[in-house]
Amino acid sequence: MVGTHFSRKNLDFTLFDVLEIELLAQFDYFNAHDSETFSMVLDAATDIAEKIMKPAFVDSDRNQPELLDGQVKVHQGVHDYYKAFSEIGLLSAPFSFDYGGQQLPKVVAAAAEFICGGAHNSFVMYSDLTKGAANLILTFGSDEQKEQFARKMLSGEWTGTMCLTETQAGSSLSDVATTATPQPDGTYRIKGQKIFISAGDHDLTDNIIHLVLARIDGAPKGTKGISLFIVPKNRLNTEGGHLVSNDVVSIGIYHKMGQKATPAMHLEFGGQNDCVGYLLGEANRGLPQMFLMMNGARLGVGMGGIHIASAAYYASLQYATERPQGRRLNEKNALGEPTTIVHHPDVRRMLLQQKAIVEGGLCLILMCYKFLDIERAEQDPSVKQYYNDLLELLTPVAKTFGAEMGMVATNQGLQVLGGYGYTEDFILEQLARDVRIMSLYEGTTGIQAQAVLGRQIPRNGGKAIDLWLTEVRKDIEKAQNDDVLQTYATLLETNIAQWHKTTQHLLSLAAKGDAEIFLADATLYLELFGILNVAWIWLKQGIAAQKTLSIARLSEDALQFYQSKVHTMRYYYHYELPKAQSLTQRLTDDTNLTLFDNDFEPLC
Amino acid sequence: MVGTHFSRKNLDFTLFDVLEIELLAQFDYFNAHDSETFSMVLDAATDIAEKIMKPAFVDSDRNQPELLDGQVKVHQGVHDYYKAFSEIGLLSAPFSFDYGGQQLPKVVAAAAEFICGGAHNSFVMYSDLTKGAANLILTFGSDEQKEQFARKMLSGEWTGTMCLTETQAGSSLSDVATTATPQPDGTYRIKGQKIFISAGDHDLTDNIIHLVLARIDGAPKGTKGISLFIVPKNRLNTEGGHLVSNDVVSIGIYHKMGQKATPAMHLEFGGQNDCVGYLLGEANRGLPQMFLMMNGARLGVGMGGIHIASAAYYASLQYATERPQGRRLNEKNALGEPTTIVHHPDVRRMLLQQKAIVEGGLCLILMCYKFLDIERAEQDPSVKQYYNDLLELLTPVAKTFGAEMGMVATNQGLQVLGGYGYTEDFILEQLARDVRIMSLYEGTTGIQAQAVLGRQIPRNGGKAIDLWLTEVRKDIEKAQNDDVLQTYATLLETNIAQWHKTTQHLLSLAAKGDAEIFLADATLYLELFGILNVAWIWLKQGIAAQKTLSIARLSEDALQFYQSKVHTMRYYYHYELPKAQSLTQRLTDDTNLTLFDNDFEPLC
Repeated sequence: MVGTHFSRKNLDFTLFDVLEIELLAQFDYFNAHDSETFSMVLDAATDIAEKIMKPAFVDSDRNQPELLDGQVKVHQGVHDYYKAFSEIGLLSAPFSFDYGGQQLPKVVAAAAEFICGGAHNSFVMYSDLTKGAANLILTFGSDEQKEQFARKMLSGEWTGTMCLTETQAGSSLSDVATTATPQPDGTYRIKGQKIFISAGDHDLTDNIIHLVLARIDGAPKGTKGISLFIVPKNRLNTEGGHLVSNDVVSIGIYHKMGQKATPAMHLEFGGQNDCVGYLLGEANRGLPQMFLMMNGARLGVGMGGIHIASAAYYASLQYATERPQGRRLNEKNALGEPTTIVHHPDVRRMLLQQKAIVEGGLCLILMCYKFLDIERAEQDPSVKQYYNDLLELLTPVAKTFGAEMGMVATNQGLQVLGGYGYTEDFILEQLARDVRIMSLYEGTTGIQAQAVLGRQIPRNGGKAIDLWLTEVRKDIEKAQNDDVLQTYATLLETNIAQWHKTTQHLLSLAAKGDAEIFLADATLYLELFGILNVAWIWLKQGIAAQKTLSIARLSEDALQFYQSKVHTMRYYYHYELPKAQSLTQRLTDDTNLTLFDNDFEPLC
Repeated sequence: MVGTHFSRKNLDFTLFDVLEIELLAQFDYFNAHDSETFSMVLDAATDIAEKIMKPAFVDSDRNQPELLDGQVKVHQGVHDYYKAFSEIGLLSAPFSFDYGGQQLPKVVAAAAEFICGGAHNSFVMYSDLTKGAANLILTFGSDEQKEQFARKMLSGEWTGTMCLTETQAGSSLSDVATTATPQPDGTYRIKGQKIFISAGDHDLTDNIIHLVLARIDGAPKGTKGISLFIVPKNRLNTEGGHLVSNDVVSIGIYHKMGQKATPAMHLEFGGQNDCVGYLLGEANRGLPQMFLMMNGARLGVGMGGIHIASAAYYASLQYATERPQGRRLNEKNALGEPTTIVHHPDVRRMLLQQKAIVEGGLCLILMCYKFLDIERAEQDPSVKQYYNDLLELLTPVAKTFGAEMGMVATNQGLQVLGGYGYTEDFILEQLARDVRIMSLYEGTTGIQAQAVLGRQIPRNGGKAIDLWLTEVRKDIEKAQNDDVLQTYATLLETNIAQWHKTTQHLLSLAAKGDAEIFLADATLYLELFGILNVAWIWLKQGIAAQKTLSIARLSEDALQFYQSKVHTMRYYYHYELPKAQSLTQRLTDDTNLTLFDNDFEPLC
């Protein structure tokens, strides 16, 4: 599939062969669907990606939005994308019939996002944020709020944002200082500033619905005094007729390394004391409500790393198959015709690494979306809880693997092109700038790591670990019955046993009560856990590939594809999984060198 | 030293405590110097860096040069820099008295470059390339060529470039196709195109001296038919009076991810059949001659990675000490005042990694420059050869460690700033774009790896390995006598024994004659060897620090500094050296997955 930015064959394999998502249609909630409707969604996404998004990829980077006279105008490509994406129903698709949606499984919507995001990773930000904000309103809002705001967002008439970060607080949301003063009519006056608001202003729609974290006057300090508000850029005037300005002002625009087609705004709410907000859900429950939405957002960021890496992989693979340079290392005739660089083992290694990251990361993230769907559609509370627990554990892992390893893969793609990769003549340069944001969005890698090791792993006496082991061992057992996979099942088993010992060791540190010692290397722990998870995912893919190889009479193309799957799995186990050794060595070494000591500062 | 882009204290420690460069003054060639003159050079470099280079860093990135009407105008900052740098004598300093130089050791010139490059990594490209080209002319040129070209280059009147790459050839220099046709007057007509020529055109000086690889008509094919030519942009007219155009035309300018203040040009030589070239050195010896200069250039690129990482380290350290966010992990009072982020172990880990890479990489590269100086000044041919052999082995290692780990460190710097790091409000964003070129310049990492494992390691029955082991074991022995260092000396010894076994294993593959199998993972081998070299370098620094700590009565500042050295050495051994385990596991695993197979292509 050289020449495009993703492989549909691989996406279908992941969705249907590995994750068997057609089974979701057995749930009442999804019963309007089958694999055919899923495929139609992916076809529609491909159409928009190829015809509208890709052609605007470079130009919208070179001509980034500016804040002029308080107004932000975005690239024409964003307008075209948003119109097409919402008109064709992709925006509302995963939502309920009641709000114009199609009750499409999130995993399929995410696969569509993979297709679109690989074509233009900035454009999908607008639709993603709108979906996330609408989801929050539909989950916690009053019927009136759902009608007034969510419906218009899902139709594409208005867009949405999430407004968390403030200058002084950053990731420390307990320090949010924006205020909300109750008014006699039940609304609130909002006052404060928010920074880094993606798609926080634009000329795409005539209204933007901001979801804003703020403190109601007199609320408790810290995280337990934060509430969530719906704050439209423009509000309906008192007669309910037309829109009037709601005192939400763009006071700055950030210029970024990449993702330039999405403006990151500095917004001021209530500078003129005339900004009205509507409480969403319960007072002082803003953070837990927001985090519900953040889980989806984190998966989306991990996907961002992977869809960019996918575009980078196919661009560098195409280059490698077309670019003649040098001779093969075993070629005796130094004066013969040059070979294309895809024949050089070092180039092949860089390409295989990309492929292993892209296809492994994609499958991990889509599996999480599938779990979200099961959690949504399942009636049995204990099953719901099972998937919820798994998701709490896996979401930061999937986010971080996608972000960090997506960056590694994209940079390998650039490297394959040599000096050309560093120039604007090829898209690798832009992809490498774009992907750099993913380890910062929605909680940095360090923040994700603290969530995993500090909260999810110790929670409920290690319950999440048990669930995870149950899931992984199902696949190890399956793989043990296959001659080719046996070796890899055993390798995974061994590595997991080692990881389990490492985890116990860290938990014994936690038991001593010094959180700084316990969490000092949390980021390295998350890296290790990510490597193991994707090793598991590759075993899953190996199982699905071997199943087809063993029973079916395959076309030459299909044979190639499934054998390539097994080959890439083997690459992952022989090249990527060994990285677990070094991390384990570090994590079981109790020499503390990163702790702060008042008497001695080595950082100078 | 927060607030600047490098630590002078650390630079002095590296030069004088660790490398003892004042001993170079014992050589006749350097006897005009002592540590005082060395310091004056560093002071002068600091002055230019702070007053001229840093102020232009951002603006020259935002306003990149364009090719307009065949002309390239560069930023005013480049003009100011080049004038100051040459007028103060830094350009000519490392050259012989005969050509206006001061016979300054290259290691001191490199330290000055570290200071300047950290302030503006694009500007130093102009002076670096000119020095490299002048060095080649002084080494291989006729007296007339030295007078006519090199003298004017070293005075700052003209600049120089290296023109190797052609569109169809890339790193494969045997495929160079530019032609040189002998003329009755002993000159040559040059015809061909070169790409990616850094500083290949500008309005800085009224002439540019290109050193061009080309084939004399009828020369043997392949690498043995390539000659080196001096091709000025403008030549003296036949009366020897004024300059006339030499038919060297800028036909394209590359727009790059970073290093934007240095134009990368696409040049056409002899489009009008009126481009005169002068043979430099021997006919058909162009490549070995050029490679002599490439060694210095490769060290310079490694230094590029490190001086950028130094700027990133101090910028992120400053941010971390000023930015309040969150509470310490052990803080019971969640509502207390926020702490600055330098108190968080994860942030400290990111900072320590940067510091370990910057100070380790700097010392490795400066040690190589010192070896270059000894090779130059030493009279005894066997000693000369000894250092030459060591340099052949270490140059690609130092280049690659600086480039690859400089990139890692710079990205950690960006990560420390969170979302701010991704914006143009801080220099990390620009530094991260700039540093990305280093693993591509002067031979990609893959090319360096083939040089190390394919040529230097097997050469002369493994002679270079023996020399290297001799050097390293000197330090291991010294460290064994120190209570603190003993542990680390033993760790290094163990790791080297393991590396030696891995090397023997790979050489046994080489003996079977399949170069593709032997070299498939050369890049990973180079990574491993780089990690070990910097572990050695850190032991060296530990030895020097312990020496001072044990005998001297130190000020509180100095005590802090030397203890920080030992602390950072320990960080390196506990966090970075363990990476050797995973690489060893991969390199001793004979499963080949990256070889090309005509019947099966896993890359799809």
